[in-house]
Amino acid sequence: MAEEMPGEPRTLRLQHGNRIEALCVLGGHIRADVFGAAPAGAVAFGVKHTEGVSVDVLFHGHAEPEAVSGTSTRWPLDEGTVLRFSMSQASSEVNDNKVTVSFYAEGGKPINQAGVFLTGVGISLDVDADRDGVVEKNSPNKASWAWGPEGHGAILLVSCDKEFPFIPPSDCDSEQVFNREDLLDMAQMVLRTEGPQRLPRGYEIVLSVSVNDADKVGVFHVQNPFFGQRYVQVLGRRKLFHTVPYPGGAAELHFFVEGLRFPDETFSGLVSIHVSLLEPLAEGIPHSPIFIDTVVFRVAPWIMTPNTLAPVNLFVCSMKDNYLFTKEIQSLVAKAGCKLKICFGYINRGDRWMQNEIEFGYTHAPHKSFPVVLDSPRERGMEQLPVKELLGPDFGYVHKEPLFEAVASLDSFGNVEVSPPVCVAGKEYPLGRILIGSSFPTSAGRRMTRLVRDFLYAQCVQAPVELYSDWLAVGNVNEFVTFVPTSDKKRFRMLLASPAACYRLFREKQKEGQGEAIMFKGYSGTDTKRVTINKVLSNDTLAQQNQYVQRCIDWNRDILKKELGLLEEDIIDLPALFKLDKQGKAVPYFPNTVTMMVLARVLGIPKPFGPVAGGECCLERQIRTLLEPLGLCCRFLEDVASYHGSLGEVRCSTSVQRRPFAFKWWHFTP
Amino acid sequence: MAEEMPGEPRTLRLQHGNRIEALCVLGGHIRADVFGAAPAGAVAFGVKHTEGVSVDVLFHGHAEPEAVSGTSTRWPLDEGTVLRFSMSQASSEVNDNKVTVSFYAEGGKPINQAGVFLTGVGISLDVDADRDGVVEKNSPNKASWAWGPEGHGAILLVSCDKEFPFIPPSDCDSEQVFNREDLLDMAQMVLRTEGPQRLPRGYEIVLSVSVNDADKVGVFHVQNPFFGQRYVQVLGRRKLFHTVPYPGGAAELHFFVEGLRFPDETFSGLVSIHVSLLEPLAEGIPHSPIFIDTVVFRVAPWIMTPNTLAPVNLFVCSMKDNYLFTKEIQSLVAKAGCKLKICFGYINRGDRWMQNEIEFGYTHAPHKSFPVVLDSPRERGMEQLPVKELLGPDFGYVHKEPLFEAVASLDSFGNVEVSPPVCVAGKEYPLGRILIGSSFPTSAGRRMTRLVRDFLYAQCVQAPVELYSDWLAVGNVNEFVTFVPTSDKKRFRMLLASPAACYRLFREKQKEGQGEAIMFKGYSGTDTKRVTINKVLSNDTLAQQNQYVQRCIDWNRDILKKELGLLEEDIIDLPALFKLDKQGKAVPYFPNTVTMMVLARVLGIPKPFGPVAGGECCLERQIRTLLEPLGLCCRFLEDVASYHGSLGEVRCSTSVQRRPFAFKWWHFTP
Repeated sequence: MAEEMPGEPRTLRLQHGNRIEALCVLGGHIRADVFGAAPAGAVAFGVKHTEGVSVDVLFHGHAEPEAVSGTSTRWPLDEGTVLRFSMSQASSEVNDNKVTVSFYAEGGKPINQAGVFLTGVGISLDVDADRDGVVEKNSPNKASWAWGPEGHGAILLVSCDKEFPFIPPSDCDSEQVFNREDLLDMAQMVLRTEGPQRLPRGYEIVLSVSVNDADKVGVFHVQNPFFGQRYVQVLGRRKLFHTVPYPGGAAELHFFVEGLRFPDETFSGLVSIHVSLLEPLAEGIPHSPIFIDTVVFRVAPWIMTPNTLAPVNLFVCSMKDNYLFTKEIQSLVAKAGCKLKICFGYINRGDRWMQNEIEFGYTHAPHKSFPVVLDSPRERGMEQLPVKELLGPDFGYVHKEPLFEAVASLDSFGNVEVSPPVCVAGKEYPLGRILIGSSFPTSAGRRMTRLVRDFLYAQCVQAPVELYSDWLAVGNVNEFVTFVPTSDKKRFRMLLASPAACYRLFREKQKEGQGEAIMFKGYSGTDTKRVTINKVLSNDTLAQQNQYVQRCIDWNRDILKKELGLLEEDIIDLPALFKLDKQGKAVPYFPNTVTMMVLARVLGIPKPFGPVAGGECCLERQIRTLLEPLGLCCRFLEDVASYHGSLGEVRCSTSVQRRPFAFKWWHFTP
Repeated sequence: MAEEMPGEPRTLRLQHGNRIEALCVLGGHIRADVFGAAPAGAVAFGVKHTEGVSVDVLFHGHAEPEAVSGTSTRWPLDEGTVLRFSMSQASSEVNDNKVTVSFYAEGGKPINQAGVFLTGVGISLDVDADRDGVVEKNSPNKASWAWGPEGHGAILLVSCDKEFPFIPPSDCDSEQVFNREDLLDMAQMVLRTEGPQRLPRGYEIVLSVSVNDADKVGVFHVQNPFFGQRYVQVLGRRKLFHTVPYPGGAAELHFFVEGLRFPDETFSGLVSIHVSLLEPLAEGIPHSPIFIDTVVFRVAPWIMTPNTLAPVNLFVCSMKDNYLFTKEIQSLVAKAGCKLKICFGYINRGDRWMQNEIEFGYTHAPHKSFPVVLDSPRERGMEQLPVKELLGPDFGYVHKEPLFEAVASLDSFGNVEVSPPVCVAGKEYPLGRILIGSSFPTSAGRRMTRLVRDFLYAQCVQAPVELYSDWLAVGNVNEFVTFVPTSDKKRFRMLLASPAACYRLFREKQKEGQGEAIMFKGYSGTDTKRVTINKVLSNDTLAQQNQYVQRCIDWNRDILKKELGLLEEDIIDLPALFKLDKQGKAVPYFPNTVTMMVLARVLGIPKPFGPVAGGECCLERQIRTLLEPLGLCCRFLEDVASYHGSLGEVRCSTSVQRRPFAFKWWHFTP
């Protein structure tokens, strides 16, 4: 947006007996005070001007302007009378246009003149404000940003991938561009100039960024157009302004712009870049700006991918004790049509909790999209995986490490999930909503570190919902809720762990005469006592504890129904039992089936080791009955030794990179 | 706002063959799954209930509810059939209401029952959401905040004054309340409860504040109502929750709430306080919340007072060399009807720049308003003044000290001004707009520290305008702009320093034959050469430098016209001349009249020592001609020795505490 608004033009000081020179930026206006420029005794004035200039006379500032067309018109000289010049075509030579004001005394005698030579120059800083991948010419929307399908505003990507295999860690830490691939991640910005071959002496065109924005945006330009394609940073962390040599005639200079950082609590995502035209006055006197044009970009957010999106790659750690497990996973992956990526010991360094270490997402602009892995502040061995194995060409990496806060179990990314697209009381969330586990307001319980929580909120497009997960020992939301895709109108179901459903099932089985059916058959965990349905149902402590757990889940259930706009029929209760540890926190009593892995229609479910009656586990049977009619394929995986015994499940051991949404986030309105 | 929204009620698990007990919060709903509670073989059910309960039957969640009125109706048992209970009157005894569900087999044979005993309890956390100074009962608006005359939402004051003369520094650093005056600064919050004399065993009522809000709000409550009026902090920096003993019957508990911090970059000003009702299950099992009620407060902003508001106190430092100056000020203050407050040497410690050290403002809530002094991060000797001399009962103090940034000349409060109320393109700013001096985007020039700038922006009600003041050596906006009150429709004029006006005046005088009139007569500054109008007009360097200065001022003039919605006739150009120092920064050539002191209609103007012709200074004459017709009284003060010689003027030596606006800031819409 040009700072020179119609009606708020730049002020020029005419002087009688003098001719001054001025640049006139096309589309802008120059105002000159006629009264102040008049010699003593003048009572009227006339105006002559060349064809390239339009001149209006304004009386008292706010009256209707009168166009100057003929040369014989004379106006009375009044305080507050000003001239307004504008030019619509660039000059081919310096000072090729002229305005002359003649002053007249009482009786019409000419006294003196004041004149101005004008050079018309076009300057426009341009971006892709209509988001079609093409930089338009001087869009009226280039200096502002609006959400929604009718919105506008250019978009930047954070160059958090790494086109070049060696140091530095990622592209946005680099002040040089090493190959053309890197430029393709960047948004284009074009500086268009039009005018004579040279500007009058001393004028300068300067690109600039404010101190506040300088650590959020980098601008690159070709270093020497005659020698190859080396691009250097001209604006960025240490470069607040950059003088652009005036190219002469009609020219387009191409710049490439990258984001240096995702939105966060202190950064809304918007950055501005300015171009200024500076005018000299004399040796030793600072230049002053006579025109500023501004463009605005929004840095694209980091977006999470729900279970309902197609899986691309599944990551799992290879451990000493999980060979059979990974073999089973291998067959699931094949069935689901995605790829298995194994993280070996030298990278995982003994950490098996893939889901907790990283969360896959992506970033997206009209010109480009690529996956971005968010690295948890939790560091339990696997922290080299994302940087060493994932970060690469068109694969980005972002890390949030709190400076002051301690990292806790609720910072594991099992405690961050995202719902499928939902509609809540008429408001669409086409990218779903993020679910974060937290604690009740009534206690100083555990919480996710503020840094990560603020980061998730700041992305804006998947408005987070805070749930209550502190009642669990591990404290992750994926211990009680997940989502599976369906092919019906709703397109998904929400699955919740449910002690009530388990008691209901067990009581039915008891009634059917299967009270002595034995649980945990073939279970390799530590709990090897003979457990039957009758034993479970007669355990009052367990019943009370599960009543409490059900309350905690119901509290979340009510929040989820409200915040995701769900009805009862959108929810499936999976039988689950918990017990409380010495701290009063819940741990699963048998492998927790809701903490499953969802690969399209194929579900990798922790094998629950439920009561076996008629040769079949009644929990598996019940889960199949609930899920198979929806077109889902249930595969039960033995995870006791490798994961469940350490308070995790199938889901925690894996992390899935999924295809991005087709929906464009900028069409959403937060 | 109660978390229990209509249609999103709390879920209760009925069990056939069992009677459970539950608290029902008035105005809330409880949902119970009938199908899940049914015994095997049941195909229908009937419901009986006592008078105090309303019961609806909901089929499949989203159908119309059917009210349960008679006792003979039977409904078919369907999956998804739920009951919804609510109570509108508090119980006088525990379990005095009851709902019984009877299940029937095919053919109508009764099989079993499920029952729930209900105790109705009213809980409401209440505030003055309609801003009339009275805490209303359960306002539907108490959990949200909206700006404007039709808005709503409670308001807190930052207790930044000091009712108690000894340590700690200010009231909001204290966790105890030492006298009742302190309570009068606070917003009232009332917890209303209604129910039986005692709650069933184990239930708890807990007030809480989130970790994020805990450093922004303090809540006080009487410690022991039977022994005097000692109030203690129950929520605050180190107290996230507080158990409230249930008073029994119908009761009101009064709490007092204070803000601990003004809004800033990381704090929008909004804080929430919750009350939760916690339900016990069994020994050793954590309580779970069954009801949460929330209230929202906005912390009142710090508001600046423009020159157009009536002066109350004028502060000036007593120095060794300014006795005559302060005597002159004394007579101005008397004329303007305000008081003079002299800051003596033991407090000012050699710092004479009162205006730069402190800025007076105020804060305002429906229940109270008091002045608040903002202390500059600049520390040049006088830093004890605000704490030792100003802070006191109903006189607040706020200080912004950057941790990492260096403090520069642009952080002086001469670089922060505020306009009178303006209307800009239809948008009203009834509290004016703050003006901050900054540098052009084209240079890495000086800027105000981000902390102070962000603080000013975060107050929201006087949307700042950034001007360009870095062209000046001292770099303060009050070196080129000020505002004076008038009694006409506009109610004020903006005054701008103007080299162009000075040259125009000098040329006129030259033409009138006064070219040899001598400037600086009686001037005690260092510049003692004989200077005449002719000499000034023939100095080409000075002319060029002032042309540059005029450009810089014109740039600001254009911004001010646009951002304050001003017309040419709202602006008065005061003659001024500048020269550039070795760094190319401007300093006044003669005392800069725009940097004046405005006390109602009395102006204390730096004596310019202009060319004397006919026994009169033509600059003083010109200024009188411009200002006296507006009803203003011009008094020219000699400030050369005491201030101008050190690059400051009358304005910089004084700071004025003014009467607050009558306008209520919460009626503004940012």
